[in-house]
Amino acid sequence: MHPGFCVWLTGLSGAGKTTLAGVLSSMLDERGRVVTILDGDIVRIMLSRGLGFSREDRHENIVRVGYVASEIVRHGGAVVCAMISPYDASRDAAREMIGSVRFILVHVDAPLDTCERRDPKGLYARARRGEIKGFTGIDDPYEVPSCPDLHLRTDLADAETCAREILGHLQARGFVSMNSP
Amino acid sequence: MHPGFCVWLTGLSGAGKTTLAGVLSSMLDERGRVVTILDGDIVRIMLSRGLGFSREDRHENIVRVGYVASEIVRHGGAVVCAMISPYDASRDAAREMIGSVRFILVHVDAPLDTCERRDPKGLYARARRGEIKGFTGIDDPYEVPSCPDLHLRTDLADAETCAREILGHLQARGFVSMNSP
Repeated sequence: MHPGFCVWLTGLSGAGKTTLAGVLSSMLDERGRVVTILDGDIVRIMLSRGLGFSREDRHENIVRVGYVASEIVRHGGAVVCAMISPYDASRDAAREMIGSVRFILVHVDAPLDTCERRDPKGLYARARRGEIKGFTGIDDPYEVPSCPDLHLRTDLADAETCAREILGHLQARGFVSMNSP
Repeated sequence: MHPGFCVWLTGLSGAGKTTLAGVLSSMLDERGRVVTILDGDIVRIMLSRGLGFSREDRHENIVRVGYVASEIVRHGGAVVCAMISPYDASRDAAREMIGSVRFILVHVDAPLDTCERRDPKGLYARARRGEIKGFTGIDDPYEVPSCPDLHLRTDLADAETCAREILGHLQARGFVSMNSP
């Protein structure tokens, strides 16, 4: 059985989590790993319909994802979570469920104004107009991880480069073979 | 990688699904399989806090469990679901997500009066007193599966015997080795 692991991508909306999850997943796929991507938008449909964006609901959402990820990891699966996950307490809860040995926290970082300029879903514009309340980075806090396993700046490096850095980290921790391409 | 599969136990409250899931899980564990049990009560805490027991909420609950099970099965994992899952449409949705080849539907059956006599959680008594509305078998329907892979009568055979029957079925379908004890 492969060793299971969970790469947890945290960061602002527009920081590049979903893109990075896709590129990393392809690289793992090329190396023969089955990967589950738990992406915020999909999760809100498949697991968390009805939950809102209050602190409690955001936490509940992360705990559900942590639970699902932990079960997949227990079966030796590879999971990539792409979740804003703005609170330390929620990320810690996920780490605890999954087990810190198998949990790789990656801060997918770009300055707020960069994220806001990208605004791939038009959400920042809506938040600035007051149409969305409690938007992370605007009127809801993003608690910067104090000790991520990796800190990647997506305004300074492209997704391919960032994904390769995560892959190298996974190899160094023994989750992916060193001999693979 | 092991072939993943999902044993889906459906039946009335008190029919013995949780007990059977535990015994079957132990048997699989003895054969070296990692097993995830998705039991109704646990699922309501871990995945579906806030969902009620309306037709829509019950369906949503089953779809979530189906989604989680399908991901674990995709990673080669073994899943045992113990869910009342009273509606054909919901069970069909789960089967579709998981894939019919890897989905084993087991009707865990006992007559209503037997389940009501057992009443392990005192829920039938509360439903009869009108304290619980929409209780399956009392004032909400249980749609009997027309074509389950297995139909087990827990009033006629003990959990050990029933679990062995499921195990035999899993062996016959190639999910568990024939040579194992």
